[in-house]
Amino acid sequence: MLGGYYGDDSPIAAFATVPGGSALTLIRCSGKGVLDLAARVFSAGEKLLRAKGNTIIHGWILAGDSPDGTRGEKIDEALVSVFRAPRSYTGEDGVDISCHGGAATSAAVMSALHAAGFRDALPGEFTFRAFLNGKMDLTRCESVLELVNARTQKARGNAVSRLSGVLENEINAVKKMLVEALAAAEIYLDYSEDEIGADPLEDAGMLPKRELAQEALARLRALAESWRMERIYQEGIPAVIAGRPNAGKSSLFNLLLKEERSIVTEIPGTTRDWIEAWVSAEGIPVRLFDTAGLRDSGDPVEAIGVERSRRLLESAELALYLIDGAQGIASEDLAFIDEIAALQKPLITLWNKIDLAPLPSESARETWGKRVLGISAKTGEGVAELTAAIAGAARETAGGLDGAAAVGTARQKDLVEAAAVALEDALLLADRGEPLDVIAPLLREAVNLLGEITGEVSTADVLEEMFEKFCVGK
Amino acid sequence: MLGGYYGDDSPIAAFATVPGGSALTLIRCSGKGVLDLAARVFSAGEKLLRAKGNTIIHGWILAGDSPDGTRGEKIDEALVSVFRAPRSYTGEDGVDISCHGGAATSAAVMSALHAAGFRDALPGEFTFRAFLNGKMDLTRCESVLELVNARTQKARGNAVSRLSGVLENEINAVKKMLVEALAAAEIYLDYSEDEIGADPLEDAGMLPKRELAQEALARLRALAESWRMERIYQEGIPAVIAGRPNAGKSSLFNLLLKEERSIVTEIPGTTRDWIEAWVSAEGIPVRLFDTAGLRDSGDPVEAIGVERSRRLLESAELALYLIDGAQGIASEDLAFIDEIAALQKPLITLWNKIDLAPLPSESARETWGKRVLGISAKTGEGVAELTAAIAGAARETAGGLDGAAAVGTARQKDLVEAAAVALEDALLLADRGEPLDVIAPLLREAVNLLGEITGEVSTADVLEEMFEKFCVGK
Repeated sequence: MLGGYYGDDSPIAAFATVPGGSALTLIRCSGKGVLDLAARVFSAGEKLLRAKGNTIIHGWILAGDSPDGTRGEKIDEALVSVFRAPRSYTGEDGVDISCHGGAATSAAVMSALHAAGFRDALPGEFTFRAFLNGKMDLTRCESVLELVNARTQKARGNAVSRLSGVLENEINAVKKMLVEALAAAEIYLDYSEDEIGADPLEDAGMLPKRELAQEALARLRALAESWRMERIYQEGIPAVIAGRPNAGKSSLFNLLLKEERSIVTEIPGTTRDWIEAWVSAEGIPVRLFDTAGLRDSGDPVEAIGVERSRRLLESAELALYLIDGAQGIASEDLAFIDEIAALQKPLITLWNKIDLAPLPSESARETWGKRVLGISAKTGEGVAELTAAIAGAARETAGGLDGAAAVGTARQKDLVEAAAVALEDALLLADRGEPLDVIAPLLREAVNLLGEITGEVSTADVLEEMFEKFCVGK
Repeated sequence: MLGGYYGDDSPIAAFATVPGGSALTLIRCSGKGVLDLAARVFSAGEKLLRAKGNTIIHGWILAGDSPDGTRGEKIDEALVSVFRAPRSYTGEDGVDISCHGGAATSAAVMSALHAAGFRDALPGEFTFRAFLNGKMDLTRCESVLELVNARTQKARGNAVSRLSGVLENEINAVKKMLVEALAAAEIYLDYSEDEIGADPLEDAGMLPKRELAQEALARLRALAESWRMERIYQEGIPAVIAGRPNAGKSSLFNLLLKEERSIVTEIPGTTRDWIEAWVSAEGIPVRLFDTAGLRDSGDPVEAIGVERSRRLLESAELALYLIDGAQGIASEDLAFIDEIAALQKPLITLWNKIDLAPLPSESARETWGKRVLGISAKTGEGVAELTAAIAGAARETAGGLDGAAAVGTARQKDLVEAAAVALEDALLLADRGEPLDVIAPLLREAVNLLGEITGEVSTADVLEEMFEKFCVGK
């Protein structure tokens, strides 16, 4: 296999779907000479070379040519999609090979491509090339990775809005305002010195088009704020179901898994002390842990389980404490609720088995925490309210609202914040009456930082670091 | 979701790749009105409706239209491949949707397709329709499933040869001979009665074109024989590594995994008593088991492990018995070798640590079994010979040779055998001097049985049973 690096245009190939087991496997190829190379291992090679862009050719993938020019044996029947630059994902010539699924077939086709001269694509290299060739700005590139990782429909929707350019447009709109303010400042500086001959100090505190800078700052602050909620949509919040043994924790866990069927992946725990699963609470991915029952016990084995539950609670961002309503609240319950309250994390206290035992009066439950809900893990009563309460607690944690334009990565948020800081400094200096030639460079800095978000301004190492997080084939 | 059945032409959709996690997801759609339905959830719907077959259109998948006719929100950016009947996999109009990977995106696109009127495809339904529409005979259909399941390159190659029609052609060639023989017999029968007026009994023992029936029988027998080896290529053979504790079983297991890198899937054992993995021995998939050491022990826990190893040995088709060469052979080793020999399964006896201790003389090892090899699980010495010996033992078990045309499924083999039996009976009756009007129906039966293999003769329930084994999306 040939070596390669981000930024070259050598022919690359990668599985775009998980090879093995499924009906079909899709292999993506892009780069210089890709059609010539693909033609060498394709029964309808001549047709492929003559094909227009965005057309599909049926044929057989062949093992590489022998030195004597005879064609290799048939490996698999396949459809080859032909893309011609610049009308392709990467902006380069490309082919997508749709062959049969199965590990042996996938491996054989890939090995024929290697023999023909393709190298394995680096992670995110297709998208990297799309960026280099001006097909997408960096915010759209990053949204591609968000899309693949989205755990709920809400997270997917947010990523798609960035993929369709909502964030790019917002950043460019804000940048345009700042460029206009900067231009006004620079014209003023030029005039002051050369023609008007005025003393710059006389203009101290004067920032031309200041209202543009101020609106830009407000919009940047809103964008930076948006990350708190976006991060939760992307990473989800860890929530632990706690309670004394037999309070009904596992029943509640299973009920939440069943009701919130959007996307659920059961992850078998590494020990039998807890299990975890992803559920969606109004579009917010919740990583739900069902733990061993909390009980102060002399049994050393049981004590280990309880200790693990405590550690899970400490790292969680939300606790669901379950009381067995049929048994009533015990002093041990109150002690555990106090313990959780001391951890200072959002707590939802649940009175289970409400079908058997009604929720005690408000005064009786005033020591149970701020949020108390009655549910029945058996009948499903109260589960909708619980889901809403979980979502509400998550939104409260974020303290943010869902905005139209939002940042989708920590990188974007850091740059937006840095631009906001530069802008704040500029406005502060203007308020203090500092001269414009001290303020203007801060405006320029903010413009450059916004350019980094979309990739207008970028360096090779920053780009590499970003794309290395992608999966191969993307 | 709408219901459906094999054989209707309603619009169907299915994931053709595993949804979630990968760069892209491919959804296959086929059936009546597929382009109209797809256009409803595609931003470039008009373009899609006008598109020629085998072309690709870029656009956005949209949530279904609202009742007021406004278009749904963007779900994902996608490429839609358009196929027009009969130039498609199924022979119907079809579209392939290549959208971003990820569970949320896949689920949202599929749900838009459901809303537009697609139903989920049944297992193998695309291939079923390809068969119904005359795109493939049944042997080719079955080879598609073989391809997906192939565990080694040899198994893949055999499936591809059937996909390209090698078996179909052989069956049709044999059938043609029998049809010719049958036609000759029928003409003779017609003449005897109507024109020549001869007594049929006078022609007893006479089978016109008997040499054709005889050649056909030979070729059918070879085909039926081929299944013994093909079955092994498809299903692999279970092989158990046995030996006393610390003979080096796990080292050998790991070495075989590392050397035979073609396709290896480690399967964590359900207990810690054994682990298993697939390795390839000259293209033969071997399901290799590393077992607990054999030792007659008083310890009840250890005894359970040894008992499991014994049961694995009983169900295995090949045993690799490992002797610790550094320790030399113990009477316990000989007892275990005798035990395995009593099970009457192929045994390869391995003298491990040959780098430290040379293989004893031939006379010294005459009680060790037919095949004895020296190896070093540490240096890798002797592993190539071991792989060859495993492949040899598998081929011996099959007692067959790799033929050019071979059957690929038990169904095909059963029908070939039944046709051969009918033909044998016909020839036997002819030899016994039975009249031609008793023999001709047997020839017809053989012809029909061969027609069932390719699907020329078929019934709905047989087809359904066959395609239900397929994966969805195939």
